[in-house]
Amino acid sequence: MTGTEVRVRPVVGIPEIAAGDPLGKLIAARAGALADGDVVVVSQKVVSKAEGRTRRLSGVIPTAEASKLARILGKEPNLVQLILEESAEVVRAERGVLIVETNHGLVCANAGIDSSNVGDAGSVLLLPEDPDASARRLRGEIGGVAGARIGVVIADSFGRAWRIGQAEIAIGCAGLVPIDDWRGREDATGRELMATQIAIADEAAAAADLVRDKAAAVPAVVVGGLSRWVTDEDGPGAAAIRRPREDDLFR
Amino acid sequence: MTGTEVRVRPVVGIPEIAAGDPLGKLIAARAGALADGDVVVVSQKVVSKAEGRTRRLSGVIPTAEASKLARILGKEPNLVQLILEESAEVVRAERGVLIVETNHGLVCANAGIDSSNVGDAGSVLLLPEDPDASARRLRGEIGGVAGARIGVVIADSFGRAWRIGQAEIAIGCAGLVPIDDWRGREDATGRELMATQIAIADEAAAAADLVRDKAAAVPAVVVGGLSRWVTDEDGPGAAAIRRPREDDLFR
Repeated sequence: MTGTEVRVRPVVGIPEIAAGDPLGKLIAARAGALADGDVVVVSQKVVSKAEGRTRRLSGVIPTAEASKLARILGKEPNLVQLILEESAEVVRAERGVLIVETNHGLVCANAGIDSSNVGDAGSVLLLPEDPDASARRLRGEIGGVAGARIGVVIADSFGRAWRIGQAEIAIGCAGLVPIDDWRGREDATGRELMATQIAIADEAAAAADLVRDKAAAVPAVVVGGLSRWVTDEDGPGAAAIRRPREDDLFR
Repeated sequence: MTGTEVRVRPVVGIPEIAAGDPLGKLIAARAGALADGDVVVVSQKVVSKAEGRTRRLSGVIPTAEASKLARILGKEPNLVQLILEESAEVVRAERGVLIVETNHGLVCANAGIDSSNVGDAGSVLLLPEDPDASARRLRGEIGGVAGARIGVVIADSFGRAWRIGQAEIAIGCAGLVPIDDWRGREDATGRELMATQIAIADEAAAAADLVRDKAAAVPAVVVGGLSRWVTDEDGPGAAAIRRPREDDLFR
């Protein structure tokens, strides 16, 4: 197993994506040869675009709550309204930063709503409604065209509580073990590993980001060499990586 | 740039490391051909071992504070004492979990002290005293033997506030841009990117973990294809990724 190499390559030439586009087929057509065990990491942005998750800010009517929060944070009221609609809970709202738990249980800034690379100054892009479902759908489409057993990750850039900068994480996945659980197994010296659960899907998302160029928009990346974590079934998805609120020490 | 592939390969055959071992040379001897722009990701564990950071728990005398905290958390008093000695601040101490800010400014469980894979049931392993200095030293040693301009990352598995499982991050680095800062630059549509700072060193650490096998102990990994972030100078190190306490919303 340790002889395995991991190779990460960008999928280039994917056209600008619009609502309703057959994203899986467009990726499959440009991904080159896919082998059993490859993982295709797809940017949240193109998934959201294909799923029609673009919203015009001018069509949003902010509530009094959103307007008040927007004033405190120095943000646009219409944007804050959209963030609140996409959120189950506000985790922090201070110093111009709005950290929420999204309706899918992801903790992130601005409910993951993106106003860059949308292609229209008055529009923003929401996260997919169900990123694990998006991953399952793309897995079927891409794997079907390629005739290979692949995994799919939907990746997005998230900030971290104690570290500067963003890293890509898996907001959705299918056909890939999201967490490799070593608890109860033994280490190289025969001692039981106590707390080792490796966030494979997040690490695959991070690896994929290393071949991206934020200016050039590379919406899909193929990561080869992960076959030991690629499964026949879609599996539990990235939902399995979300820490339950009751176990969270940092709310 | 977007045509670049990233390749991740394990360095196999490194012997068990003991205090005082010339770690850089041992890695260089088994890393195969290294090219300009390669990044060598080294596990914290072997760096700590080579630097003699192993401690016998039986030699530690817990203070009253450590004993009290140990009782509350259900942990060994001697281990808690070591954790407190390595820490600048206790961030959370509840439900059996002790999250601290280490003396180097890293926020993590148990000050990063490790009791697995140490090879002696009564011993634990502290983090390197100055992981960026360790990275600089290893860069000089490995790059010197290889005759190549390489980057070095010292990687460790850290938990995350809102996500289950650990991912590898860079606790030290040298010769690698730790954060690729796109703020003020433009995206593919010509719009200014607002908040994109990509944690390259952390993503490289995560990518490297994908060729590891927790049971087999792969202490070094070569990541090729990152040359656009590999620098002539050692640079600011992973210290640049630590969020200053005054900007932290989650203490």
